Amino acid sequence: MKVIRTVEGLTRIIKEKKQLNRTIGFVPTMGYLHEGHVTLMDQCRKETDVVVVSIFVNPLQFGPNEDFERYPRDEERDAHLALSHGADILFLPSMEEMYPSTRSIEMTVVKRNDVLCGRSRQGHFDGVVTVLTKLFHLTQADVAYFGLKDAQQVAIVKGLIDDYNFPIKIRTIQTVRESDGLAKSSRNVYLTEEERNQATNIYKSLLLAQNSISEGNKNIDQIKEKMIGWIKQNTSATIDYIEILDYPSLEQIETINKRTIIAIAVHFTNVRLIDNVIVNENGDIIEKVFS
Amino acid sequence: MKVIRTVEGLTRIIKEKKQLNRTIGFVPTMGYLHEGHVTLMDQCRKETDVVVVSIFVNPLQFGPNEDFERYPRDEERDAHLALSHGADILFLPSMEEMYPSTRSIEMTVVKRNDVLCGRSRQGHFDGVVTVLTKLFHLTQADVAYFGLKDAQQVAIVKGLIDDYNFPIKIRTIQTVRESDGLAKSSRNVYLTEEERNQATNIYKSLLLAQNSISEGNKNIDQIKEKMIGWIKQNTSATIDYIEILDYPSLEQIETINKRTIIAIAVHFTNVRLIDNVIVNENGDIIEKVFS
Repeated sequence: MKVIRTVEGLTRIIKEKKQLNRTIGFVPTMGYLHEGHVTLMDQCRKETDVVVVSIFVNPLQFGPNEDFERYPRDEERDAHLALSHGADILFLPSMEEMYPSTRSIEMTVVKRNDVLCGRSRQGHFDGVVTVLTKLFHLTQADVAYFGLKDAQQVAIVKGLIDDYNFPIKIRTIQTVRESDGLAKSSRNVYLTEEERNQATNIYKSLLLAQNSISEGNKNIDQIKEKMIGWIKQNTSATIDYIEILDYPSLEQIETINKRTIIAIAVHFTNVRLIDNVIVNENGDIIEKVFS
Repeated sequence: MKVIRTVEGLTRIIKEKKQLNRTIGFVPTMGYLHEGHVTLMDQCRKETDVVVVSIFVNPLQFGPNEDFERYPRDEERDAHLALSHGADILFLPSMEEMYPSTRSIEMTVVKRNDVLCGRSRQGHFDGVVTVLTKLFHLTQADVAYFGLKDAQQVAIVKGLIDDYNFPIKIRTIQTVRESDGLAKSSRNVYLTEEERNQATNIYKSLLLAQNSISEGNKNIDQIKEKMIGWIKQNTSATIDYIEILDYPSLEQIETINKRTIIAIAVHFTNVRLIDNVIVNENGDIIEKVFS
C-alpha cells in the first residue's frame, strides 16, 4: 500500500494505473475507520483493480459550532486497517494540499438540502460535494463506495454525479451495526457508558416504525409519534429530527411509498448521532437503492 | 468523423478511446464556427490523438435579454468545417441531453466575476462553468482549447480546473483577426455594413493603449481616456467597458504590471462585441498566458 500525502503524488500514480487500464475504486472517508468503512473497502477490493482510500477531515463540511477540532483521528490505526483490507493507495492530504487558496467557484446544494441533516447542518452538504468533486477528479475513480448510514449524503452525491455527468458509478453498502443494533460511527466514542446503552434505542425506534409499516400502517404522523415516544421513554437524548420521506428525492410524502426513508437524528451530551432505514411500502428493507 | 447527439453515445466512444490510451483534445464551441475555432481545432489536431469538438448553444450562459434565440446557427457548414479540420468526434447534444432536469447543485463564480463581461452579463460565467464541467466529464479530455478573445472566460476556467483538480490541461490560442484587425466572432454577422467598417477601431483602440504602454505610459486612467476618445471619435458604438486589470487574477491594478489585460466591450445597434490584448509592462503581447 502506498501512502500518499500530495496532490502531485496521487496524480502521478493514478496516471500510471489509468495507462494500464486498471479500474479504480474509491472509498472516501474522514478516518477513524470502523467496520462500516471496512465493509466499503472489502466491497471495493472485490470489484475493482485499484483500491484508493482517502482520509481527510474536511473542514468545509463542519459548521462553526460542530466538532471539526475534536473529530477523532488515529492515522496509524487507520493505515493498518486500510492495508489489511486491501487498499492499494491511502491518500492522506493536508489542508494545504486540498485547499491551497479560497475557491473562485462555489458549489451549492439546492435540492434535498432543507430536510434531515441539511436543515440543522447549514453548508454541510456544500462542503461534501466540494471535497468529493475534488477527490473524484484526483482519483479518477470508476466506482465510489458510500455507506447508507449517510443516506442523505448518498442521495445528494448521486445528484452531483447525474447533474454534472461525472464518469463515475456509485455503489452503496447497508449500514453496519454493533451487535445491539447501534449504527457504527466514528462519533460513537463520544458517548458516555450510560448513553451507549441507551443508544441502541435509536435503531429500535426505526425497527418499531418498520414493523408498524409491515403491519399496514401508512400514517406518517402516527409512525413518527411512536418513534418519538420510544426515544423519550428509553433515552436521555433530545431529538433533532425524525422524518419519513421519499428516497432518493427526499421529498415530503403523504403516505408510505415504494421507496421510503425513515430517518432519525438525536443529541446526546457530547454527540449527535444519526440512523435510518430505507423500506418499500410493505416495510421491507431496500438493499439496492439505485438500479 | 462521428457525429454524436447523445450523452450515452459520447460516453461509449470516449470509453473506447480511453481504453486504447488515446489522448483526447477538446474544443468546446457554440457553433457558427469561424477561423478562431479553426485555429483551435488545428492546434488540437496537432497535439492530441482524438479531437472532440462540441457545438452547444448553452442557454444557461445567456441572460434573459441576450441573444440566445437569435444566436447564429449553421450545423451543416459547421460539420463540414470540423471534418475538414481534423475533428474525430462532433458532439451536438440537444438541450434535453444536456439539461434533462433542473440541477440539484449549482455552481457560482465568486472571483473574477465583478469585472469586464461578468459585471454586465449576470450569471453568464455560472452558465459557462456549469456546461464546461459537464463537457469536461463527458469528453474526459486531457487538453481543452480556448481562444484568448474570451480572456475572462479563460481565466475563470483556469480557476475552475485548479480549484476542483480537474485532470485536464488548458491550452490558449491568440485571438484570430480579420485583415483589418477586427477579432473574429460569430456575432460579427449582426453588424451593419457601416458598423463593420467602424468596428476595426475596437482593435485600433487596443493598439493605441499598447503603444502608449510601449512608450512608457503606466497611467491607467490616462490610457483608458485615450481609448474612450478613440472609440467616440471613430465609431457610433457605445462603450460597455474599457478596463485594464491584472491577468489572470483580474484584480484592479495601480499601474501597468507584468501581465496586464486591456479589455473593451462596445455595443453596436444589434450586437455587443469584445476584444482584448494581454501585455507585459513594456507593452509586449504575452503569447503564453499560463506557464
